[in-house]
Amino acid sequence: MFIKDTWYVAAWHHEVTRTILARTILNVPLVFFRRQDGSVAALEDSCPHKFMPLSGGYVQGDTVVCGYHGMTFDGSGRCVRIPGQETIPRNARTRSFPVVERYGWIWIWMGDAEQADPALIIDIPQMSDGQWAPSRGERMHYKGGYQLMTDNLIDPSHVTYVHAKTLSNSTEAELPIETSVHEDHVAVTRIVRDSPPAPFFQSLGNYKGNVHRWQVYRVAPPSLCIIDTGTAPADSISPEDLDLAADSLTRSVSLRGGDSSRLLCIRGIDFLTPETDKTTHYFWFLLRNFALDDRTCERNVTEQATKAFNEDLVVVEAVQRRIDLGQLPPQVILKADAGSVQVQRLFARKLAAEQKRYADRAATA
Amino acid sequence: MFIKDTWYVAAWHHEVTRTILARTILNVPLVFFRRQDGSVAALEDSCPHKFMPLSGGYVQGDTVVCGYHGMTFDGSGRCVRIPGQETIPRNARTRSFPVVERYGWIWIWMGDAEQADPALIIDIPQMSDGQWAPSRGERMHYKGGYQLMTDNLIDPSHVTYVHAKTLSNSTEAELPIETSVHEDHVAVTRIVRDSPPAPFFQSLGNYKGNVHRWQVYRVAPPSLCIIDTGTAPADSISPEDLDLAADSLTRSVSLRGGDSSRLLCIRGIDFLTPETDKTTHYFWFLLRNFALDDRTCERNVTEQATKAFNEDLVVVEAVQRRIDLGQLPPQVILKADAGSVQVQRLFARKLAAEQKRYADRAATA
Amino acid sequence: MFIKDTWYVAAWHHEVTRTILARTILNVPLVFFRRQDGSVAALEDSCPHKFMPLSGGYVQGDTVVCGYHGMTFDGSGRCVRIPGQETIPRNARTRSFPVVERYGWIWIWMGDAEQADPALIIDIPQMSDGQWAPSRGERMHYKGGYQLMTDNLIDPSHVTYVHAKTLSNSTEAELPIETSVHEDHVAVTRIVRDSPPAPFFQSLGNYKGNVHRWQVYRVAPPSLCIIDTGTAPADSISPEDLDLAADSLTRSVSLRGGDSSRLLCIRGIDFLTPETDKTTHYFWFLLRNFALDDRTCERNVTEQATKAFNEDLVVVEAVQRRIDLGQLPPQVILKADAGSVQVQRLFARKLAAEQKRYADRAATA
Repeated sequence: MFIKDTWYVAAWHHEVTRTILARTILNVPLVFFRRQDGSVAALEDSCPHKFMPLSGGYVQGDTVVCGYHGMTFDGSGRCVRIPGQETIPRNARTRSFPVVERYGWIWIWMGDAEQADPALIIDIPQMSDGQWAPSRGERMHYKGGYQLMTDNLIDPSHVTYVHAKTLSNSTEAELPIETSVHEDHVAVTRIVRDSPPAPFFQSLGNYKGNVHRWQVYRVAPPSLCIIDTGTAPADSISPEDLDLAADSLTRSVSLRGGDSSRLLCIRGIDFLTPETDKTTHYFWFLLRNFALDDRTCERNVTEQATKAFNEDLVVVEAVQRRIDLGQLPPQVILKADAGSVQVQRLFARKLAAEQKRYADRAATA
Repeated sequence: MFIKDTWYVAAWHHEVTRTILARTILNVPLVFFRRQDGSVAALEDSCPHKFMPLSGGYVQGDTVVCGYHGMTFDGSGRCVRIPGQETIPRNARTRSFPVVERYGWIWIWMGDAEQADPALIIDIPQMSDGQWAPSRGERMHYKGGYQLMTDNLIDPSHVTYVHAKTLSNSTEAELPIETSVHEDHVAVTRIVRDSPPAPFFQSLGNYKGNVHRWQVYRVAPPSLCIIDTGTAPADSISPEDLDLAADSLTRSVSLRGGDSSRLLCIRGIDFLTPETDKTTHYFWFLLRNFALDDRTCERNVTEQATKAFNEDLVVVEAVQRRIDLGQLPPQVILKADAGSVQVQRLFARKLAAEQKRYADRAATA
Repeated sequence: MFIKDTWYVAAWHHEVTRTILARTILNVPLVFFRRQDGSVAALEDSCPHKFMPLSGGYVQGDTVVCGYHGMTFDGSGRCVRIPGQETIPRNARTRSFPVVERYGWIWIWMGDAEQADPALIIDIPQMSDGQWAPSRGERMHYKGGYQLMTDNLIDPSHVTYVHAKTLSNSTEAELPIETSVHEDHVAVTRIVRDSPPAPFFQSLGNYKGNVHRWQVYRVAPPSLCIIDTGTAPADSISPEDLDLAADSLTRSVSLRGGDSSRLLCIRGIDFLTPETDKTTHYFWFLLRNFALDDRTCERNVTEQATKAFNEDLVVVEAVQRRIDLGQLPPQVILKADAGSVQVQRLFARKLAAEQKRYADRAATA
């Protein structure tokens, strides 16, 4: 089941051009293109005449022309031309979807268009406060349900095994985690005290001694994950002075009553967009609060994160294949699953609320 | 649903030899081979013993020998030998199908064999009157239902978009068409007056000035399409003198009270044979009333038509894929669909008549 | 339907090492590995936590570590470690299966573990009496149900057609066969008198004149096939003195009141293990009572048998594809099918007995 009344990331800004981009989201085949003023339109990828995919046609001005008989649709899905016919039937249209361009991403609203308030898009103040610089990953794609990956991204305990050579230094598998549930998200946190930095950070910082490391995993169902990681010098900062901001989706980790620029912080923004029930688009970028103008560091972060996320894809695709085979053993829930279980509950509440809203609307209609 | 009591084109004559040809028609896997006298036999591709495909065996004399245990069947499907066993059980047979070789094609009757009258095969007098020469295409195959292509072949309005670089010169998308329904077929006609020849004809004729062009599309359900196209010099012939012969499957376009050899005519014969519900064999040839002995022209026509028909395959396969995805928008019917709608009605009437015939027979049996 | 309370061959001994082998048997995905003492463990290929396949993890000591979160299972399927959690839940286990290593094969019991008596594994005295030497084939795999191959292996009449160039000299298709039903198996026998040796034997022996040849096919449902073939010099031995031992799974062909070493004997042991409903693992070796230390002969036998068995795979896969297409003609049963029909009956009796046993146990539980 998909939540529909929410903003999903549909594409990177540079993927949508004056040439048609075909992409399926929530099982719906879509086309994306830019109008002449640069704004983005999203239409169902289907001409209502013979069901020719519009992606087999072409962009002309602010319209898409079907490649079969030339029926032409504007960005609202309205048919504006039928070759050989003057009158355009009222039902000659294809469905359009609200889209917003923000943070380098094209966001789409697959549900009730009247609810599509751009203010509902997650606020990421770090994108504009001048103290952070992004490393952007290319869209990834995997053969597995999107919730297998949100499950993965609320779960610190997989890091030691899946990312043994990239994100973890294997000292942390046994460390306790804390789980907290908030209005829109679940947070799982862990602090690794006074230890060497993990491989990922080691390659970025100029470390002389041990550090305190933190991991703050937040998942806001259905699809947004924000992961704060970072290090503080163990010899001059006490872990108790770290404010992990687990209760907030917008704030990052900071130093209570101190200068937060002494912390090396990375804030990962991950967005899982269902393509179909069992395939997913994976969009992500990482913000860092250091080496802001350093393009080598930027590239370095992108490369290492791509490598680590590909390790997740291998695992998640293997799990999906196993689930598809059926005959599963009874499931065992572990202590480390507290975050995952809470995410599932929060998702279920959101889905039930949406379904009630749709049912109410259908009843009054 | 397939109409079964009709002749379908199964193969080109040169495809059926003394070696087994395996081909599926109307979802039935079949084998074809020639007997020693050159006549063609068609059997179900299945030994009734262990269901080994007979196509895994070989032709011996006028029989097919199964490659598993050597059971041997003649062209009527009767078992004539069982190695190691003298008595041949009465039910030891595989189904055979009536076949006729005509116009370079092997025709097959998949329904009630008692109704298989060769006189029901469409008459193509142009094949033997000495005034036409054929360009034969190789069998094509596409992943889409056969009716997606008959739909395409009754529809002049796609030409401007699908065949922009081959058959059309893009002036004609807005021209009116005329639709007429006849006993066995539907016809759609269009005349383009006083304009340059289309690219296809331009490469064939030695044109000095503008021409009148015509397109006469006829579909006889389930599977036969005949398309007459051609040009007449605009300076010496009036469009009103053209007899498009829309009411006839056998007559081609002629000049009323004049010398029809002044017309450059091409008559396309297209036959769509269902392989399965969603895949189709496409057989075709084109007859021309000019350059009869010109092998270069013959090859030229074949090459250009192959190119154009491949443009149709791309479209039709895209439509099939979109339909298979489901979640289709409400369909819009256009004025240009009059022919298509009539073909569907004629098909439905034929199918209903056949089903009644089968039901009546079952009731009396 | 599978019989579960029986020993199936799961792998060749050299396939199971200190690295995980993933293999599906009876539709159940499994992992195999060797403990430090060389003994073999077989577990369901699924971590009960997130259903990650254990084949994505690694062997550590006598355990398998899951590659997702490090849950660790011993060879009995018991979880012995959960990183980050001291208490191990009672249900934290994956299913394990009894295994036995014998005759170079790893045998597995997929049913009720309490019934898994190693004494139920077929006795092959020729493996240890010092008078036979084996040629071992690599595991083969085909896309077809396992019973299509037991059907093939009880059936001498296919040899002339499927193995015309390998096992048969084509004189035998018409020879009578004898079928007998025994407690655990069905036997089909045939003797070819006073004729040249078949191609397979011709390449092995140093023949001067004609021979008597025999074929003794035994199938013990669900999956074991034993085929004795061989030759005796026609000028000095009477066919009546041959004891074909059709009633026994353990005895091979011998000379009544004579020296059996005058017979050239090959005893083929074939085991068909269902991978899924429609795919099969094929394990086999051939024992010969001659040229015991001759490695060239050993290799020769393996190569020729591999070639012949691949001929069977082609046929059996073609039959499976045809069956999957459906629309099969009414089946014809031949005289030569007596063995096949009896194997099906014996299988049905065994299956019914097992199902009654399971039902009785469920009723008393």
